[in-house]
Amino acid sequence: MPLEITKAFVEEIEAAIEQDNAALVLASLEDMYPADITTVLYELDAQQSKYVLDLLDPEVGSEILSSLDAEIRNDFLKNFTSEEIARYVNLMESDDAVDVLNEQKVQVREEVISLLDNEEKAADIIDLLHYEEDSAGGLMAKELIKVNINWQVGQCIDEIRRQAETVEKVYGVYVVDDKDKLLGRLGLKTLILATDDTPITQLYDPDVISIESYKKDTDVVEIMQRYDLDSIPVVDAKNKLLGRITIDDVLDVIQEQAETTRQLMTGITENIEEDDSIFRLSRARLPWLLIAMIGGLMGARLIKVFEAEISLLPAMAMFTPLITATGGNVGIQSSSLIIQTLANNSLILDNFTQRILKVILVALINALVISGLVLSFNVILDENLQLAVVVSVALFSVVVLSSVMGTVTPMLLDKFGINPAVAAGPFITTANDLLGLAVYFLVAHFLLL
Amino acid sequence: MPLEITKAFVEEIEAAIEQDNAALVLASLEDMYPADITTVLYELDAQQSKYVLDLLDPEVGSEILSSLDAEIRNDFLKNFTSEEIARYVNLMESDDAVDVLNEQKVQVREEVISLLDNEEKAADIIDLLHYEEDSAGGLMAKELIKVNINWQVGQCIDEIRRQAETVEKVYGVYVVDDKDKLLGRLGLKTLILATDDTPITQLYDPDVISIESYKKDTDVVEIMQRYDLDSIPVVDAKNKLLGRITIDDVLDVIQEQAETTRQLMTGITENIEEDDSIFRLSRARLPWLLIAMIGGLMGARLIKVFEAEISLLPAMAMFTPLITATGGNVGIQSSSLIIQTLANNSLILDNFTQRILKVILVALINALVISGLVLSFNVILDENLQLAVVVSVALFSVVVLSSVMGTVTPMLLDKFGINPAVAAGPFITTANDLLGLAVYFLVAHFLLL
Repeated sequence: MPLEITKAFVEEIEAAIEQDNAALVLASLEDMYPADITTVLYELDAQQSKYVLDLLDPEVGSEILSSLDAEIRNDFLKNFTSEEIARYVNLMESDDAVDVLNEQKVQVREEVISLLDNEEKAADIIDLLHYEEDSAGGLMAKELIKVNINWQVGQCIDEIRRQAETVEKVYGVYVVDDKDKLLGRLGLKTLILATDDTPITQLYDPDVISIESYKKDTDVVEIMQRYDLDSIPVVDAKNKLLGRITIDDVLDVIQEQAETTRQLMTGITENIEEDDSIFRLSRARLPWLLIAMIGGLMGARLIKVFEAEISLLPAMAMFTPLITATGGNVGIQSSSLIIQTLANNSLILDNFTQRILKVILVALINALVISGLVLSFNVILDENLQLAVVVSVALFSVVVLSSVMGTVTPMLLDKFGINPAVAAGPFITTANDLLGLAVYFLVAHFLLL
Repeated sequence: MPLEITKAFVEEIEAAIEQDNAALVLASLEDMYPADITTVLYELDAQQSKYVLDLLDPEVGSEILSSLDAEIRNDFLKNFTSEEIARYVNLMESDDAVDVLNEQKVQVREEVISLLDNEEKAADIIDLLHYEEDSAGGLMAKELIKVNINWQVGQCIDEIRRQAETVEKVYGVYVVDDKDKLLGRLGLKTLILATDDTPITQLYDPDVISIESYKKDTDVVEIMQRYDLDSIPVVDAKNKLLGRITIDDVLDVIQEQAETTRQLMTGITENIEEDDSIFRLSRARLPWLLIAMIGGLMGARLIKVFEAEISLLPAMAMFTPLITATGGNVGIQSSSLIIQTLANNSLILDNFTQRILKVILVALINALVISGLVLSFNVILDENLQLAVVVSVALFSVVVLSSVMGTVTPMLLDKFGINPAVAAGPFITTANDLLGLAVYFLVAHFLLL
């Protein structure tokens, strides 16, 4: 059963490290899964973590290093020599090895590669380093089992036996021709149920879904999800088999995507986590705050333009927060919905005009409810009637305009290849604040003067 | 290769349905994967979809039905008789069958179950219907391959052969004792490499991670992700093997979670999609808009309280949007960060006081930058100096207070078992608007009067 890491347990480990009691540290960690030891390491500092890692079996150590968060791993490996790093990289699957090496300085990277015992792994890694990190090639591992179309089942099983050490998870074997062109796939279940002398040609499924190495990681996610695949072969433009991507790598991509979207939507510009440094946290948050600040200062100028209206009806100032907040909220809701549609790729066939018409209809209903309620409140609270009318007319217009803006902006950004989630953050709020103010004072201008 | 569905293609299908040209419809869809036919169905209406489904092989049809979005499936199945539904449910894996049946009215559900040919499947479904939908039991399928600890490899392979039709994806077999207690797991790779007469006891891995049926679906996600599992066995309190969950089901849960979080953060209260009805879309968005509206009206009252300060310095009104927007943005950023930490469960050991201290430090830096810049702008633009000071002092305080509030609110909600994402939406924005206004006018009150 997975272990719950307690504070007391971590303190125990820390004390044992302090006393240089290697036996006690090992005894405490002995029965734990590598993933749980990783969780413990997150609570230790870099020196303590190195102490622990040095004690562990290198196989376990390489698994832990592969699973560490990229930034923490980077900090962590600064205490390691290239020889030490090479020892762990030697034991990693090629995709994990490349992730680790990509985080190192060029010099360290070259040193580590030159120190790898395993020639084949070194060649695989050098090859994989050429691919963009966010492409199918950047996600794939070279470890896979491929069998020749002319073989029989017995030869396939021998090949699996030969590769059993290298390839950790086997979902199936890939069938290729003499030139390594991908021809199909053969599931383990099929293999296990066939006799040794059955020819592969009789068993394999030629209808295999593959992906080209240059495709984006988001395409990989979409295809694996759509077709419910646990692994997908990666090929080059000539359909030559290059590697494979497994579902666990895709899970990580999905998680990252969701976090990036959420951060962009809330105005955070770098991929940060709560335990990053104070400076980094500030820096990631400032850009949007500054943009919003400029928006606010522009708002102040805008209000100044309408001094005449305000002096005529000073109580107008009371309702600016209501107007701007409503515009912001409606805009964010609209953006959120369209971003979801864009992410699910279900836009393909729908008509732009129809979509906007629907957005406007929904907005009209909400606008009617809100402005109606505010009008009633203001009448009940015996507010100046002129003001009450100005506020409700402005609210009505702001809800409709913000809905349209909140919908169209992400679509435009997406069209220009920018992540539409950017739009749902402070950008939309700031723009809608200004829009709201302008509408409010223009309505006042026309109704009052 | 996966097909890109074009508008022209859909129109062609629609025309063929119109002309009742079954041969043409079939010919067009013949080479497509079920998942792609599903995409086409999303573009057709319920009648047209039924026409297509009736033509297809029931195996393909049941796969399509399993993959349809729950709500669309629900609309869609209204055109089907219980007999027709039963024909498809008969061919589904038990977890998909239960999903479909859970969406039906009780009467339809009972009818369909009574009409199932496959006695074993009917029993499985009745059993699965007892579990909460968002629990491990609600996610699991009954289809799995289990082998007795006393068997040899040959018997395991016979068992796989016997179940090959029923269990679509086989990642490994589960080893149980005579009372169906889970003892371990045996990967297909190990099985394939062993000789027929090897006893299971020599091969199996007793260290299998399982999950109890009552655990939450989010726990399933966390465990499968942490330990990189492609499937997990589900057991009861006495460790009896009940079913298994595969990684594709978990992917769906992750996707839903991300969508729910995003919707809550943007003030949408129901799980909606752009193509829902106008009424439903309005209804999902109104509650938060109304709360924000009440906040706005309260803000108006609040401003009225400080009429004295405003009449003393009417230009104060100019800066309210800047103050409220900054508070809102800072609050949302803070909430987003803490929600991420809560979701990753990495809070376990950290100290509350330390966390808040760090939040305050980051806030102080950002507050200093923003209020400093605004002060400079106002001095350069020759604004009233008193006003400039009031605005910057208020901004400074609002940034710090909103940071703390944006951090603490989600933590409190989480503690009370409420999804903390609720806090990052209009709730925080509205609360921060009021907070910002109060701070602004209080600062003005003390500095001006």
